[in-house]
Amino acid sequence: MTDLASTTAALAGLGLPHAVHAHAAADSFRAWADTVAAARPAGVAAVAPTKTLVLAPKRGTPALVVALDSTEFSIGALGKALGLKDARAASDDAVRALLRVDKLDATPFALANVADKSAVTVVVDRNVIEFNGHLAFRAFGADKSLLVEASHFKAFLDAQLGSFEPKDFAALLAGGAAPAPAPAAKAKKEASDEKEVLIGLTVKKNEDFPTWYSQVLLRTEMLEYYDISGCYIIRPWAYNIWKRIQQFFGPEIEELGVEDCYFPMFIPEKNLTKEKDHIEGFSPEVAWVTRAGQSDLAEPIAVRPTSETVMYPYYASWIRSHRDLPLRLNQWCNVVRWEFKHPQPFLRTREFLWQEGHTAFATKEEADVEVRQILELYRRVYEEVLAVPVVPGRKSEKEKFAGGLYTTTVEGFIPTTGRAIQGATSHCLGQNFSKMFKILMENDEGKRVNIWQNSWGLTTRTIGVMVMVHGDDKGLVLPPRVASIQAIVIPVGITAKTTEAERNALYAKAEEIVATLKKTGVRAKSDNRDNYSPGYKYNHWELRGVPLRLEVGPKDVAKNETRSVRRDNGVAAQLSLATLAEEVPALLQRIQDDMYAKAKAERDSRVVRLESWDKFVETLNNKCLVLAPWCEEVSCEEDVKERSANSAQGDEPVDDKAPSMGAKTLCIPFEQPAGGVKKGAKCFACDRKAVSYTLWGRSY
Amino acid sequence: MTDLASTTAALAGLGLPHAVHAHAAADSFRAWADTVAAARPAGVAAVAPTKTLVLAPKRGTPALVVALDSTEFSIGALGKALGLKDARAASDDAVRALLRVDKLDATPFALANVADKSAVTVVVDRNVIEFNGHLAFRAFGADKSLLVEASHFKAFLDAQLGSFEPKDFAALLAGGAAPAPAPAAKAKKEASDEKEVLIGLTVKKNEDFPTWYSQVLLRTEMLEYYDISGCYIIRPWAYNIWKRIQQFFGPEIEELGVEDCYFPMFIPEKNLTKEKDHIEGFSPEVAWVTRAGQSDLAEPIAVRPTSETVMYPYYASWIRSHRDLPLRLNQWCNVVRWEFKHPQPFLRTREFLWQEGHTAFATKEEADVEVRQILELYRRVYEEVLAVPVVPGRKSEKEKFAGGLYTTTVEGFIPTTGRAIQGATSHCLGQNFSKMFKILMENDEGKRVNIWQNSWGLTTRTIGVMVMVHGDDKGLVLPPRVASIQAIVIPVGITAKTTEAERNALYAKAEEIVATLKKTGVRAKSDNRDNYSPGYKYNHWELRGVPLRLEVGPKDVAKNETRSVRRDNGVAAQLSLATLAEEVPALLQRIQDDMYAKAKAERDSRVVRLESWDKFVETLNNKCLVLAPWCEEVSCEEDVKERSANSAQGDEPVDDKAPSMGAKTLCIPFEQPAGGVKKGAKCFACDRKAVSYTLWGRSY
Repeated sequence: MTDLASTTAALAGLGLPHAVHAHAAADSFRAWADTVAAARPAGVAAVAPTKTLVLAPKRGTPALVVALDSTEFSIGALGKALGLKDARAASDDAVRALLRVDKLDATPFALANVADKSAVTVVVDRNVIEFNGHLAFRAFGADKSLLVEASHFKAFLDAQLGSFEPKDFAALLAGGAAPAPAPAAKAKKEASDEKEVLIGLTVKKNEDFPTWYSQVLLRTEMLEYYDISGCYIIRPWAYNIWKRIQQFFGPEIEELGVEDCYFPMFIPEKNLTKEKDHIEGFSPEVAWVTRAGQSDLAEPIAVRPTSETVMYPYYASWIRSHRDLPLRLNQWCNVVRWEFKHPQPFLRTREFLWQEGHTAFATKEEADVEVRQILELYRRVYEEVLAVPVVPGRKSEKEKFAGGLYTTTVEGFIPTTGRAIQGATSHCLGQNFSKMFKILMENDEGKRVNIWQNSWGLTTRTIGVMVMVHGDDKGLVLPPRVASIQAIVIPVGITAKTTEAERNALYAKAEEIVATLKKTGVRAKSDNRDNYSPGYKYNHWELRGVPLRLEVGPKDVAKNETRSVRRDNGVAAQLSLATLAEEVPALLQRIQDDMYAKAKAERDSRVVRLESWDKFVETLNNKCLVLAPWCEEVSCEEDVKERSANSAQGDEPVDDKAPSMGAKTLCIPFEQPAGGVKKGAKCFACDRKAVSYTLWGRSY
Repeated sequence: MTDLASTTAALAGLGLPHAVHAHAAADSFRAWADTVAAARPAGVAAVAPTKTLVLAPKRGTPALVVALDSTEFSIGALGKALGLKDARAASDDAVRALLRVDKLDATPFALANVADKSAVTVVVDRNVIEFNGHLAFRAFGADKSLLVEASHFKAFLDAQLGSFEPKDFAALLAGGAAPAPAPAAKAKKEASDEKEVLIGLTVKKNEDFPTWYSQVLLRTEMLEYYDISGCYIIRPWAYNIWKRIQQFFGPEIEELGVEDCYFPMFIPEKNLTKEKDHIEGFSPEVAWVTRAGQSDLAEPIAVRPTSETVMYPYYASWIRSHRDLPLRLNQWCNVVRWEFKHPQPFLRTREFLWQEGHTAFATKEEADVEVRQILELYRRVYEEVLAVPVVPGRKSEKEKFAGGLYTTTVEGFIPTTGRAIQGATSHCLGQNFSKMFKILMENDEGKRVNIWQNSWGLTTRTIGVMVMVHGDDKGLVLPPRVASIQAIVIPVGITAKTTEAERNALYAKAEEIVATLKKTGVRAKSDNRDNYSPGYKYNHWELRGVPLRLEVGPKDVAKNETRSVRRDNGVAAQLSLATLAEEVPALLQRIQDDMYAKAKAERDSRVVRLESWDKFVETLNNKCLVLAPWCEEVSCEEDVKERSANSAQGDEPVDDKAPSMGAKTLCIPFEQPAGGVKKGAKCFACDRKAVSYTLWGRSY
């Protein structure tokens, strides 16, 4: 959106009406405003020229301000009212860096160029939104304006920002309203460095979850937005979590007899489209390579969305007799699903990392056993490694992997939105693929029979779920098992009177503690940067979720102690330096356990058991999941989805651009309520006989 | 090549003249041969109808036999003469499985459909190749024939098979020549299972290196050919080697302060083409995604050939001050270079796995230090992990990475072909990319200056080099450090008289040894399969390169001993079971050291120091590298390349389809001969002053 054409195209793409108004050239803003207000095009009842400016505070996030031309204010006064310290009009360079357009062309539509929406605070006067007519925006030239009705302008902001509330400038300037954005700098007075202004979050998890999520990922340096929508950069602070998951899961499957390998990323078109049922689910989102260098390829080549059609033709050639079984292969790789739905970092991305296991057995019994072994490992990844509780169970017919026999799953829960999320799936494919790809083995009697197959996968979605479940208003909270740094050691109590020798002694003590901890296997680090205050460092590492802080001051050292502060609950305690090598690992384990227990208690309190339909939708709207006796019929599930979607209108959580969403089955939990379904009990949603207690919810 | 059109297209593609001869339909082979011999088209002096048949031995590789129709032989006699036991004409199904054409349409041109050329032995009578005129082949129909001159037919076989020698059928049938292919089964009489026929290699490393390489990779199950040319399946036996390289290199760079991350695989076209110099080298081989599902993308998206243009724009936004440095990131990922040259498994593939490190520093000094630290790690990957000697040095101006300041390299050597191979490179990029991408930092004085960058990469090529250097006529030889199985324990001495209890005791003893070894960190496994003979198992594990075999027979057990046999040199020794936990690790270390020493001695003996041009080409032709005083001028290097290419005509190693190849500089070794270049010494190749001793060779 760096010119008029792309801007109008973008508005059209959102279905928002607009008009380009050509008028006499105006060589100043004043002249433009006057021209536009006067030269109303046909069919437009009223036109209000608007002004857009970027306010740059000395510290903190810049603000993009939109007001009617008729609304008067001084930048200083407005900045102050908005809580922006020493705000000035941003420089040409700053505007270009932020919005990627020249200052003169700055309109709110340039927000579409800002990948990280948390990098800017958008402040729009209520008068703009409530104007009954067309708003005029200067649009890439002295003789053209963009006319958009106020309601459509509001719709644009909603689409860009998730949700949007205008401000009452008059009230603000009169001192009648609290400053809208509370810049990070204000809350962190102890900090002394100018860098501090970038630290911390500006929103609360419960108040603006999507912005909170985005800020946590960006400001902890876990993630960066990328030039291609739906693709993200996984930075070391997040990638390390993936490595720790690999370090747990890899040896576990190796122990089961699974071997790692690597199959090509590319699939010839004819192989991919061979199997219609399988491909149906994927083909709308397959990325196609059609050209190499300057040459068109004879046949388009797909980038793998998953590797069944890559691998199974070779399984057919490698497997001859039952002696070649089991064949159990796994690969860690990238896959691409070019979804056109709204992407979300880690949860729904066009390229993602995963492991995919593909195994073959002589008998169904062996396949069944493995499905559950793998699911148990997935449960442990979530519960033991990430401290995130999940519900293991079987997917309904409607929700299972289409090409398979049955699907098992571990289902997570995001309390803030009340929505469930599929954690990982372990499928028994039965003999469907082995028939399709003619994977046959000679059995003991010399007969050629189809083999049995499983497939199972775990993705980088795990990271997003972990962030959403544990994070708080201060930022990320990392379970110790996946933290790159488990304990951060910070020298404190250095004042103007501290001598250099004293300071160096303190730094040396911090290093000594780190050495002690490292020796016992704790991932420890000291923060001896002398250009940052302790307060700044506390915020820095709290934001990043480091599980344990150890403060080392002169008084602590004198007592041979250190002050420990837990990230998860803020509890402080003095620890003796003499027993640190035992105390800290134990404390980290306690943090890990407590984080899981807390998340589990929260989740458990949100699983509501219902026996009938009455409170179903209300319970969902209260951000809960429902456990209810169900008939297990596909038609009933479709019916429930529709009924709960309609009823939910207007009550949806605001964290996604998804429309009001019906409930679906998450799983039929393996652990059924004591006693199971009562004899003769009816399905909660229809007149049929209930078969099992099933977990329902709105879901990512 | 499953129809006439694709067959003629393929011949045309190879530049081979041919004609399609339409004639009266002939409904039997006999009728066809007679028709063709008689109905000579205009301009063709002589036509000889040929016959093609596939001989399937009871055990071993099938043979594709081509003879003139006039050459008479019985299948049984020819099979016997060729050493093919109980050979019969292959069934329709077998022909189709091998050549992908119907038996009636089988011609030698169907060899193009056989990915693994080692799956078939091609036997062509000398009379065919020496026929002075056109050969006729039945070609997909009763009324059409393909006419190809004998010399062009030979050229086709050479292109398909690397090199090709016809047999003298008359001599063979008279018993006057040794059987051409010595099927594995013959050499392995001790084996008892029919699977044995697939075991072992049918060619010697020194006699047919490309076939040997392909057979080693396929038969050890390291690799499988894939449907897309230049893409290969890396099976667990090979992938494990890559994992062990990661397990060495990963912690080493972490120790240096490098962090792992993951950047997207896709690059918007405008980013990739931003930097012309950089892109020039890659753009001809970039794979482009232009379509997602059914939609054409607005802008084509490149699949990364390397990640400079992916990463550096973000470096520019992340780096603000010298405090943000050093920034040292690494990723393990797949990259794609759609080369149109002849692909070779591991050495030159269209998709490959690698790590790419991209680092940024405030000063050149820091960058310089890192370049060498990383190169030293690459040296250790080759020499310590893979037991492959390399020469570390600096690349010439002509051979360095075009976008960088200077390139360092470790250069390997493949004795069998006498060719060098670039092992891995560590580049100092200088400030070229930082200027291009505007990566600036504020220095201590508050000035914004360009930063310094390095990049460095190591690929799965390592695996191919390791196979080529250590493998022998029995197959793969694995250095213990990268072997999935370091010691294979095999029960022996079981006879018809052995009771079940005795056998079980032996198996239990084998398991006990495995347990003992595992406890001490040795990757051990027992082969207790009772449907295979010890001999079969020896071959099985020797082929796969397991470094140490431990045989456990009743007599050994009685003496509390086991017989150990080394894979690298065949040396056997009795080991006491009492001290196994110490002996075996020490023995494995000795094998590792000996393998390196042997390879190094071989390599050293092939590096010839020359002071002048005289023997340069002769030395190269003797499969050696040359170390010579050189002026370091680009024009001189180009000159040497041309002169050595011309002189080399006809003397080239036959392992590649490359035309005669000139020599290039491999590197300017960091370790120069004692005393360095003598004062006043001239360049070995021109009249300029010599600057340094430089390593020259023909290279992969």
